Order: sequence, then structure tokens, then C-alpha cells
Amino acid sequence: MAKIAILGLGTVGGGVAEVLRHNGASISDKLGEPLELSKILVRHFRDNPYRSLMTDDFSQIEEDPEIQVVVETIGGMEAAYEYTRRALEAGKHVVTANKELVAEKGHELLELARRNHVSYLFEASVGGGIPILRPLVQCMAANEIEEVYGILNGTTNYILTRMNRSGASFAEALKEAREKGYAEADPTADVEGLDTCRKICILADLAFGRQILPAQVLTEGISALDLVDVKLAEANGWRVKLLGRCLRLPQGQRVAYVAPHLVREDSPIASVEDVFNAIVVRGNATGEVMFYGKGAGDLPTASAVVADIIDALRHEKAPSPIGWSAGTEGVVSAEELKQRWYVRTEADQTAAQALLGPLEPLTDKMGLQAFLTQPLPLERLYRAGGPLKMHSCLRVLT
Amino acid sequence: MAKIAILGLGTVGGGVAEVLRHNGASISDKLGEPLELSKILVRHFRDNPYRSLMTDDFSQIEEDPEIQVVVETIGGMEAAYEYTRRALEAGKHVVTANKELVAEKGHELLELARRNHVSYLFEASVGGGIPILRPLVQCMAANEIEEVYGILNGTTNYILTRMNRSGASFAEALKEAREKGYAEADPTADVEGLDTCRKICILADLAFGRQILPAQVLTEGISALDLVDVKLAEANGWRVKLLGRCLRLPQGQRVAYVAPHLVREDSPIASVEDVFNAIVVRGNATGEVMFYGKGAGDLPTASAVVADIIDALRHEKAPSPIGWSAGTEGVVSAEELKQRWYVRTEADQTAAQALLGPLEPLTDKMGLQAFLTQPLPLERLYRAGGPLKMHSCLRVLT
Repeated sequence: MAKIAILGLGTVGGGVAEVLRHNGASISDKLGEPLELSKILVRHFRDNPYRSLMTDDFSQIEEDPEIQVVVETIGGMEAAYEYTRRALEAGKHVVTANKELVAEKGHELLELARRNHVSYLFEASVGGGIPILRPLVQCMAANEIEEVYGILNGTTNYILTRMNRSGASFAEALKEAREKGYAEADPTADVEGLDTCRKICILADLAFGRQILPAQVLTEGISALDLVDVKLAEANGWRVKLLGRCLRLPQGQRVAYVAPHLVREDSPIASVEDVFNAIVVRGNATGEVMFYGKGAGDLPTASAVVADIIDALRHEKAPSPIGWSAGTEGVVSAEELKQRWYVRTEADQTAAQALLGPLEPLTDKMGLQAFLTQPLPLERLYRAGGPLKMHSCLRVLT
Repeated sequence: MAKIAILGLGTVGGGVAEVLRHNGASISDKLGEPLELSKILVRHFRDNPYRSLMTDDFSQIEEDPEIQVVVETIGGMEAAYEYTRRALEAGKHVVTANKELVAEKGHELLELARRNHVSYLFEASVGGGIPILRPLVQCMAANEIEEVYGILNGTTNYILTRMNRSGASFAEALKEAREKGYAEADPTADVEGLDTCRKICILADLAFGRQILPAQVLTEGISALDLVDVKLAEANGWRVKLLGRCLRLPQGQRVAYVAPHLVREDSPIASVEDVFNAIVVRGNATGEVMFYGKGAGDLPTASAVVADIIDALRHEKAPSPIGWSAGTEGVVSAEELKQRWYVRTEADQTAAQALLGPLEPLTDKMGLQAFLTQPLPLERLYRAGGPLKMHSCLRVLT
């Protein structure tokens, strides 16, 4: 009999309890022993089927020697950070979906887990129910990872899909997303790219084995995106997608950033629509591999949490060796990255070409001027921006 | 220091040696000890950089107590089967890409591995470098798997892509695939669906935890596919893809089959082109998850083999618990599965409707008659086939 506790009974925590109840028999089969949910930490007691398991005192979980795994689904930093540390120090495995905590404090918490011979696992923190972290670390272990990029936020992908398909503006599409329950009352973390930023940090940490912190990641969301550019891109065979992206540069430096990109309409990532997520990993042996599915939702996310619980218990004697080194040297700014740009401007092609070099013009029925540049660093674009009366510029994924 | 041996130095075996050499430092880092390729079993000695490691006597590997992992890349049944058994009995982990052997003898070899406290691992047998078996078994462990389907063969997908894009006939597209090195001199196993059949068996075994043997799998390839149907489907928003598919039916029976299908052009699997593979897994908590990448090639496949080597060595004391039970009860024929059908016929809609029930007509510029049916078992279609002068019928993925 393996006993676990859940901290917080919100969407994910409630989902974990439900998956354990619904698929309990087959989970116990795989584990070789029954799995029992024995305590749930809540702030306020509520009447529901789990009432008898609730406590508002974390020390009851911390001090219960029978609890082997603590599921942290509180979210945010303060309480989650404190309870995670105390659980690891008490010799319990901790499983979480808390991307903010992992992105900010992952290195420290993984070290703490290692010293206490337990696992700190967070498959659910990126891509919801999509298996991505374990495949990246284990299945692609024979590769040097060169790049990871992906659609990591379902809310923004829903908004972009609506803008592209129905011609809704950003504000209209956001309203729709809210009505469908895909966007929160305060959508800032989603639409400004913060959520994607945390996830790309975790992916970069694991892919490159060294830390990148959210504060080092140039982060641009989609709230300033103009429908005109989405439609113009579409008419020329491109889709606009918000990507988190990290690369290892030829000299070994690392870079991570979040920004809307033009992606080719016939690329697999372009066909990722609505609230779906997808992550592309490029390894030096495997080439590009893509993982696709629902990036959020109570049951998908909960199923990733439960898979981590099973993994922690199965390898009780050989805790997960994942981790990354501290220190953020070798991280360069995305501004230095040379990439192709989509540029909409009032200047004509000759004037633009004089400042930006060879351009690939895009066609437009409304008489707008737009081009794709050759690979350029952002700084070169900044310098040309004023003279060219640039209305918008977007990165191009090549 | 961990020592390994490779059996056979063909495409995959040679790729394994190359990945170990090229990414050796980072692999040793992940493993925590150096990994040494110490022997290679060959039939004929050749001059190449590995000449000093070659032997033509398996007992030199079998009896070397320092060799912990044997990589079987001979392929086929006889010798591969014998050496795998002997290696497992000698207490060595075995890692392979041999889908034929795993599909036919997987249960027996996994049992043998279990009794000898070693792992028998075969991530590379399905999807080449795409992580699929471990994600299916580990990351989706909290799910009841309801269905798995996929484009599991790159050669046939290349042929279908060419037929769709350039209007080449099957024979012309096959010729192109041969010229590009994508098809073997004898392409039977690919184009008749046998390769896909073996892979869907392995996926079904793992997904449902019970054996399905290749002989139980209705297997239809693409050699009889008419270009007319590919073009007609395309004009109506569908792509033709060769899928391996397995499902768990509501009463718990299992079914697996291989056949060309119409898939919606806006579905993620429709955008899988050329030699790429993709596998979709539907779990009751996660929903649909897709894994995409190169399904063949020396380095992608080798990198999956090497990841298995690392896994086997890392969990030396807790060998992989994967496996499935023997016995094939509960397997029903795909003929009993109700599905939608694409039908091209000389009969008009009224006559067809009288025999097949409600139909959705497809449009065609050449004046051909084609419909999509409601879900029907194959047997109902057989009965209607004669009277309707049916030219072709294809399954529809819904």
C-alpha cells in the first residue's frame, strides 16, 4: 500500500483525485500495490466526497511517515515553495504541475530532492497531458539537443486560431476565449507570454542541462498583434503562432525567448489549432520530433501528475536523476539571434532593401507593403525601424 | 565502465556505433560512467574502424561477464531469436529495433528477461527515433488506453504523398521511392502493410497489456490503391494514409488492423508527409496525444537504441517492468468493426442508399460517383459490393 497526499484541491488537485478514483484498479496493477489518497491539504473545509481526508495543517502530512508522495497543486510561489521544501526534507517525493516554481526554483529543489534521496517530478508543468519532459530527458538521452520550440499555451493558440479563421481581432478573440472558459478573468500571464516563458525555461533547463531563468528570457505576447498581419501572413502561406523557443548556438551559448512567429502553413506545427499544444525537439541524431496534444485541462494534466506518482514509487530506490546545473553564464539575449523577419512598412521595397538587404515581398490585396527579410539580428531592425515607418515586425521560423 | 556488444553491423548497428562515438561524452555524463563498445558480432570480417572489436562467435559475447548489454540489430527471426534468448539467459540486458521478433515472440522474451532480472527493451522497433513506447507505457500510465493509430511506415507514406501531390500512380511513386533509397529492392513488407502490422501489434500489446499476434491482424497495403480515389478524396478535403490501428471495444475486446484510410485534411495526422511517421494515442484522461518524427534512418533509430541502453544500465537493479500477458482471447476481427466507408461505384445514389443506408455524396469533376457511408461493418459492404458494381472502398477515420 502506497499512500499519497495532495496539497490544494483546485482544478489539477481535484483532477488527480478523480483520475486515482476512476483508473485506480489499472494504476494499482501497474504499480504492483494499491495507491491510497490519504490526506488533502485545504485552506477551507468544504463538503465533498473527500471531506474526511481534508486537513488545513501541513504538519499532519509532513509528519505522517506513511505518506510517500506529496502532490503539490497549490500553484504560485510562497506556500508551494515552503511545503515542497519541507516535504522533500521529510523524505517524501514531490510531484507538481507548478511551472512557476519549477522555472524559478527548480535547480534548488532538485538538489534538495537529490540530497534526500527522493524524486521531484514535474511532467505536468509543461504541455499538460502531453508526455514531453520524460521523452526529452530519457528517450532522447543519446542526442545532443540543439533546439526546442513549441506552442505552449492553449489560450493564446485559441485566440490566434480564431483571428486566423474567423477574422476576429485580438480583443474579440479574447472575449470568445473567456466565454468558452479558455481564458482567465485576468489573462495577462497567458496573452503576455509569461506562462510560455516559464515553460520554455523548464524545457531549456532540461534540454541543455543548465539553468535559464525567466528574467533572462525576452518575452513578447500577442496582445499587440494586429489582425492585418495575421491575414496578410495567411494569404501568403504562413500562420502566426506564439512560440517559446530555445537553442544551443554553435559556440555553446544558450538562448531562450517567447514571441509570435510566422510558421509555414504546411509545417506540422501550423496545423496545431485551438487550445492544443505542440512541442518540437531537435536532436543531433533524431532530427525533429514533435509532441502534440491537450496542453491543459484537469484530466490531461492530472494524468501526467499521476504518471509521475507511479514513476516516483516504482523507482523508490533509484530516484529520478533529472536536474540541471545552476549558474546562468552562457545565456545570450535573443536580440543577438539572427533570424528572418516579417516586416510591414510604408516604405517601398527599394528603400527597405537599402536598409535591410535582400527582401522577399509578400502579396496583399489591400495594397499593404510587407516583406520577409534575410536573417538579421533584432538590433539591425531597430535601427531601420524609424526611417522605414515600420508598422509591425514579426519573427519567421525557418 | 559499462560494456556493451552489438550483434550485426548493418544500418542500425552501424548507427549505434556512430552515435556512441559521436555523442559519447554526453552519454557517459548522463550515465555517470563511461560506456564502452567492446564486441561486435559479424558474419564476415570487414576492414573498418571497428575491425578490432569484431567476432563471428556469439559465445565470446555470451560468456564475457563484463558485457552488460547486448544490442540485437541482426533483424529477422532465427539467429536474432536464438541470440536474444541466450543473452537474456546469460543475465544480459537486450536492446533491439527488431519489430518482427518483438511482435511474434515479445511475450516469451519479456518473460525470460523478467526471470533473469534483466530488461528487454525495444523503443526503436516502432517509430524509429520517435519516443513512443516509453511515453505510452510510462507517461500515460494513469490512463486506460482506448485507441492507438498511426502512420508507421515511411516508404508507404512517401508513396502516398507523391500520389497526392504530383498525381503519380502507385507504380510511378514506388519507382521514385526506390530511386531515393526510401524503398527496398523487394518492397513487399512495406507496401503490403506487413511492416505496419508488426508495429501495430507491439503498440497494441503495450497499450492493452495483452498479446495480439500479426496473424490476427487484417492487413491491407496500398499496392492496389487507385490514384483516382486519392485525387477524388483530396478534392473533397480528405487525404489517404496507410494506418495501423488498434482499439479497445466497449465490452473489452481488442481489435487491430492495417489499411489505407481517408483522414480529414485539417487533422494533425494529415499533415504528416514524405517519410515521416506519427502515432496518435487516445487515453481516457489525456485525450488524443500525437508523436511525430522520422520513423526510420540509421541515426534516429540508433538514438532510440542508445536511449534504451542508458535506461537498462540506469535501472540495473529495477529492470523494466513492461510486458503483456499471453493468450489471444478477446481479439475480434476488424471485419466486425463498424466504420464509415468511402465507396466509388457505378450505381447512382438512390441504388446505393437502398443497400447501404444514408450516404454523403462526394463531388467530382470527372463525373465519377463516390460516397461516404454511415458506420457499417465490412460484411455489409461485401454484400452490397456485387449489386452496386463497387470499384473501390476505403475506410474513413472518424
